[in-house]
Amino acid sequence: MTRPIVDDERAARLILAANVGDPARIGAQVERDGAVAVLDRLRRQPGPFQAPLRAANIEQVQADADRCAARIVVVGDRQWPSQLNDLGRAAPLALWVIGAGDLRLLALRSIAVVGARAATAYGLSVAEMFAAGLVQAGWTVVSGGAYGIDGSAHRGTLIAGGTTVCVLAGGVDVAYPRGHQALLARIADEGLLISQSPPGTAPQRHRFLTRNHMIAALTRATVVVEAALRSGTTATANAAFALNRPVLAVPGPIHSAASAGCHVLVRERGAMLATRVEDVLELVSPMGLGPEPVGAPTLPLDELPPTQARVLDAFPTRRAVDLETLCAQVGLGAGQVLSALGGLQARDLVISHPQGWQLRH
Amino acid sequence: MTRPIVDDERAARLILAANVGDPARIGAQVERDGAVAVLDRLRRQPGPFQAPLRAANIEQVQADADRCAARIVVVGDRQWPSQLNDLGRAAPLALWVIGAGDLRLLALRSIAVVGARAATAYGLSVAEMFAAGLVQAGWTVVSGGAYGIDGSAHRGTLIAGGTTVCVLAGGVDVAYPRGHQALLARIADEGLLISQSPPGTAPQRHRFLTRNHMIAALTRATVVVEAALRSGTTATANAAFALNRPVLAVPGPIHSAASAGCHVLVRERGAMLATRVEDVLELVSPMGLGPEPVGAPTLPLDELPPTQARVLDAFPTRRAVDLETLCAQVGLGAGQVLSALGGLQARDLVISHPQGWQLRH
Repeated sequence: MTRPIVDDERAARLILAANVGDPARIGAQVERDGAVAVLDRLRRQPGPFQAPLRAANIEQVQADADRCAARIVVVGDRQWPSQLNDLGRAAPLALWVIGAGDLRLLALRSIAVVGARAATAYGLSVAEMFAAGLVQAGWTVVSGGAYGIDGSAHRGTLIAGGTTVCVLAGGVDVAYPRGHQALLARIADEGLLISQSPPGTAPQRHRFLTRNHMIAALTRATVVVEAALRSGTTATANAAFALNRPVLAVPGPIHSAASAGCHVLVRERGAMLATRVEDVLELVSPMGLGPEPVGAPTLPLDELPPTQARVLDAFPTRRAVDLETLCAQVGLGAGQVLSALGGLQARDLVISHPQGWQLRH
Repeated sequence: MTRPIVDDERAARLILAANVGDPARIGAQVERDGAVAVLDRLRRQPGPFQAPLRAANIEQVQADADRCAARIVVVGDRQWPSQLNDLGRAAPLALWVIGAGDLRLLALRSIAVVGARAATAYGLSVAEMFAAGLVQAGWTVVSGGAYGIDGSAHRGTLIAGGTTVCVLAGGVDVAYPRGHQALLARIADEGLLISQSPPGTAPQRHRFLTRNHMIAALTRATVVVEAALRSGTTATANAAFALNRPVLAVPGPIHSAASAGCHVLVRERGAMLATRVEDVLELVSPMGLGPEPVGAPTLPLDELPPTQARVLDAFPTRRAVDLETLCAQVGLGAGQVLSALGGLQARDLVISHPQGWQLRH
């Protein structure tokens, strides 16, 4: 149970997240007007194609989450992984999370290991090897829970005693694929299951694409172990490229269709060739000084994104401030200010209070 | 039997080539003073470490070549592959050639396919596949005649009915490795055996390095199929990089030591990943208009290398001119002028006569 920081806005986000399948559809509105206003509009003008709200109020949303032992994390919450804000309007409105770990801390030091469902024995063993090596270096392995490479990445992490995060396309309580029911249960016990879809959601086609984008955004780098040409995996890689996250691809035999996507990523997209775990580590810790999490308080203030800089400037020196005041001060919508607060919090520049937000000294 | 163009200089080069194992040792002197002067010095002052000349005169050099049905090609000869001049002082003084094909024309449209002796079944099949594909596109395949990838490249070319050039480290009459005796005999029949070592020379260690440089210089691009780390094959690739020739490397399983050198070439040296023959063809014919030989008369005169431009300027408009006159005119040594003439001839700007050289109109 996460403490609600700014009750109305947070609750409105949760209700929207629990009811609107595709956040990209209303992301722009939430960013401009804040979730309260968007939800209000939705309630008053459901429109001809708008189904009645599935979870009409915060109590129901929370009860649905409780039923599957999930917690809900939204921007501004301490566990919110602020790198998801890089997705802009396509950022999730909320995440349902099952598992004991701290999502924000795990994500800050995470690598995606993804690939084809129709993987070869070679690819499966490589995925397991990379996962084990990343665990040994202290990294969390993120993948999509699918058959093939994803499954091997999760299993290799668990076998090596590491922490793995599985990003699901459907609800966190929907075991998909069915054959991975036991694996997903173990991940729930020892790692994290997360999803931007509310509990009970079936994993429809478009949710896989959104899921792939989230994997790319959540992690420091994406390792593609095997991928067919023009596959869901190359879509994850493309999302990572678009977000300026490093992409690495594992080579394989040239006759293997399962490696063809990897080879194209290297030759045509500029992905790095990954043959050893060290190739990944070198890329995420370029100075060879060991990996360093993103968002750590190393960024000079004058390199802050403009919105974050504006919000930071609006803070009183010692007192706490509430969201409404901040919005009025900077002249931005609640959604944008909350996004900025998430980023400032991830950089340890501000902290959240029951009364609002305060500068960290 | 090649007609001697400029008897003294050519003969002196042949005698030097037949006696001096490592042309780099005297290349600078020949370039500065011409072969006649260098040979003269060598004959008068053999020095304490200088063995007596093995082939003391041109008749003996020619007889040695005749005995193994080899012809000798030097810079300025019509079959001289002028791209070897890119090796500068390390360029061969002469080449011994067995086989019916035109060395210059074949080399202009040739690709090196090279790799590890300790190749895998995968590598052998890939080498054969690339060779066959290059043949189909009308290219000559050059390799080093060694066990493993080289052998497969030659065999794949022959099986596909193409022409293959084998660059040997020892003499053209020395079947090395012994197990390739039949293969080398077939290459002599259907392709070319070439070497910068005189007949009878054993393939010593340093000659393999020189051979590898020549393979890189002779060809439009080098395809590395399999290579161990820090191997003779990576030396060939490094020579190609140094000569600004494109290098392509074939990926393989990351557990395979035979592919490790290829992966390093891609990741650390900028070699292109080669998974299909088309990847090679695209690189040597960048406009997709089909391959175009180097040295074709497409280079504008004002882009000629400075020495070639000076030599070209020194030509009389209609008459033929001999080497001595040209040297006096441009104030350069016979070796440099001969190199320049080789380049001008390859560009079809000058032609050679029994009386010397003449502008082509």
